Amino acid sequence: MKTEVCDRFGIEFPLFAFSHCRDVVAAVTNAGGFGVLGAVAYSPDRLEEELRWIDEHVGGRPYGVDVLVPGKIAKEAADGRGSLLSAVPPEHWRFLSGLFEKYGVPAPSPEALGDPRVDGVGRQVTQQGATELIDVALAHPIRLIASALGPPPPVMVERARAAGVPVAALVGTVEHARRQVAAGADLIVAQGGEAGGHTGEISTMVLVPEVVDAVAPLPVLAAGGIATGRQMAAALALGASGVWCGSVWLTTEEAETLPAVKAKMLAATSRDTVRSRSRTGKPARQLRSAWTEEWDSPASPGPLPMPLQMIVAEGAMAPIGKAAEAGNEGARQLANYFVGQVVGLMNTVKPARQVVYDMIEEFADALERLNRITND
Amino acid sequence: MKTEVCDRFGIEFPLFAFSHCRDVVAAVTNAGGFGVLGAVAYSPDRLEEELRWIDEHVGGRPYGVDVLVPGKIAKEAADGRGSLLSAVPPEHWRFLSGLFEKYGVPAPSPEALGDPRVDGVGRQVTQQGATELIDVALAHPIRLIASALGPPPPVMVERARAAGVPVAALVGTVEHARRQVAAGADLIVAQGGEAGGHTGEISTMVLVPEVVDAVAPLPVLAAGGIATGRQMAAALALGASGVWCGSVWLTTEEAETLPAVKAKMLAATSRDTVRSRSRTGKPARQLRSAWTEEWDSPASPGPLPMPLQMIVAEGAMAPIGKAAEAGNEGARQLANYFVGQVVGLMNTVKPARQVVYDMIEEFADALERLNRITND
Repeated sequence: MKTEVCDRFGIEFPLFAFSHCRDVVAAVTNAGGFGVLGAVAYSPDRLEEELRWIDEHVGGRPYGVDVLVPGKIAKEAADGRGSLLSAVPPEHWRFLSGLFEKYGVPAPSPEALGDPRVDGVGRQVTQQGATELIDVALAHPIRLIASALGPPPPVMVERARAAGVPVAALVGTVEHARRQVAAGADLIVAQGGEAGGHTGEISTMVLVPEVVDAVAPLPVLAAGGIATGRQMAAALALGASGVWCGSVWLTTEEAETLPAVKAKMLAATSRDTVRSRSRTGKPARQLRSAWTEEWDSPASPGPLPMPLQMIVAEGAMAPIGKAAEAGNEGARQLANYFVGQVVGLMNTVKPARQVVYDMIEEFADALERLNRITND
Repeated sequence: MKTEVCDRFGIEFPLFAFSHCRDVVAAVTNAGGFGVLGAVAYSPDRLEEELRWIDEHVGGRPYGVDVLVPGKIAKEAADGRGSLLSAVPPEHWRFLSGLFEKYGVPAPSPEALGDPRVDGVGRQVTQQGATELIDVALAHPIRLIASALGPPPPVMVERARAAGVPVAALVGTVEHARRQVAAGADLIVAQGGEAGGHTGEISTMVLVPEVVDAVAPLPVLAAGGIATGRQMAAALALGASGVWCGSVWLTTEEAETLPAVKAKMLAATSRDTVRSRSRTGKPARQLRSAWTEEWDSPASPGPLPMPLQMIVAEGAMAPIGKAAEAGNEGARQLANYFVGQVVGLMNTVKPARQVVYDMIEEFADALERLNRITND
């Protein structure tokens, strides 16, 4: 296969795999695609460690890094001073304690909630925190750096240009795409509302051709609703130069998805996701669970702005995950994770490599069928 | 082009056009596609008149009819007795009067709101009303009868079978698709949440392959997000045997869309629609306007169940449309109509025939590009 992005990125298949798991990133890159490590959950030291591991496992093949630099965040975080934990209102801590009690989950100790790593999760999505991650990433032989939310900030564009690394940006509307191009993006990822994680409301089927026309001749990757070769063929028919998949890796053998969440994903139908602010403070598609239902209920104080809600959610999800593994039923009800509507098509555990090969094979079948339809 | 549905329905292109406008239905059928007349707005007599006109204009080429037979409707309507108008609570009439006043639109006379035609709109979506429409339709040489919402009722399936006419059913989830097949549907229209009119939340990109796999070997048409040849190619790549388009005809030369609404559609972006209960009582995607904003605001008494909200909305939209034509600014703000997210791609007025030819040409281009990508 050959599209603009295959040539440009030196890959066999125009299939980009977004994952927080280094094993998935390396497996997809080694299978002929392009792995992209989501760096938001990592401290600079940890990111350094992950990228060193990837370098050792991909033999010079191309991969990238994705960071989250939101434009609008809570002012406490933007200040960059003091503990973000102390900016979470007591009302929200009370609501959280109430949830642990209601679902019979052992409440985490105040020390666990005050864990500096939890504070760090909030810190990394600030301008300063993200810049540290960008510097770590650009010191490795990465071939792409992506801005997961909002236009790439000038510091990202400048440093990436200096390092000769193209910049990608995820967009949910045509207006965002134009803004991201003006900010210096070299590659646009048009992500439909059916996608997992932070997402808008325009579907992939509508968004991709709109964005392709708006940013031509820049190449566009399609994201959202793509987990099979038929969907990859559809995305390329819409005019995309490749696809960007995130959800499909969550049920692979390599994925570090919590077993309780993985089991939920394997059982879920396409109706079992919801776009909710309850995990990060911005609308993000995820498994519908007691967590999303409670935070989005009238009894809730409402999700906090990013990154404060991330702090609350990340601090809670670790003990919830642990309790779910130990068989706690309430914890299993609460457990969730970001995933798109394609979760309904994710029904078996496979190695990430196999997902790539299956997609390419199904892509070829879909194209053969299209040709048969047209030539008959 | 040749898919299962081309053979079965005797058409050149597997392109089904849903429209309330007989001119669009005839134009698409005559261009090699398959026109489907939406009958919900018509009395039995009027439907008879429309179908006679179509018969005279398609020279025996195939077309179909779509009726709305919802499973759950307001009990006042289900009873089938008395005026439906009297079942609308005074609070809702007051809210409606308030809207006319707030937006400076001349309020319709009580006689206009009590117009038996308005009452009829509500009546036609009852089991009895729909059955009368089905009987009228089956007395014409139609080649398809479709159930727009919910499983086709036994009376529709029985009478269609007796007349040798296949039954189609629109679905928004895999579960609905299985239920519709069990109820006797011969053809499934898998409609993504980006579609105009009554719609679910699963996107076309995710829903179509799910439904194709669930109902095989029955053929599936893809609906929602399809207005161009690239999107048609994408739908067929997903495994659909054809496409079902509704929105794209609303800005054609033939369409009877109110000029004020047509102008809004031509100017709208893909962000300018909303899924709202404010026109029919069930969630339906439409232009976002002062009408949807007001009914979905906290000050609203909330939309009534179907068909009562249809009565309120249809009774109001006639005078609103008239005032909008006369240049009334408030009426222009209120005016709206059902349309999908593809409204962002509907930017020029063309004859319906031309829409068909452009889609087929762009389909061929998209396929050629796919083949180039694969063979390079």
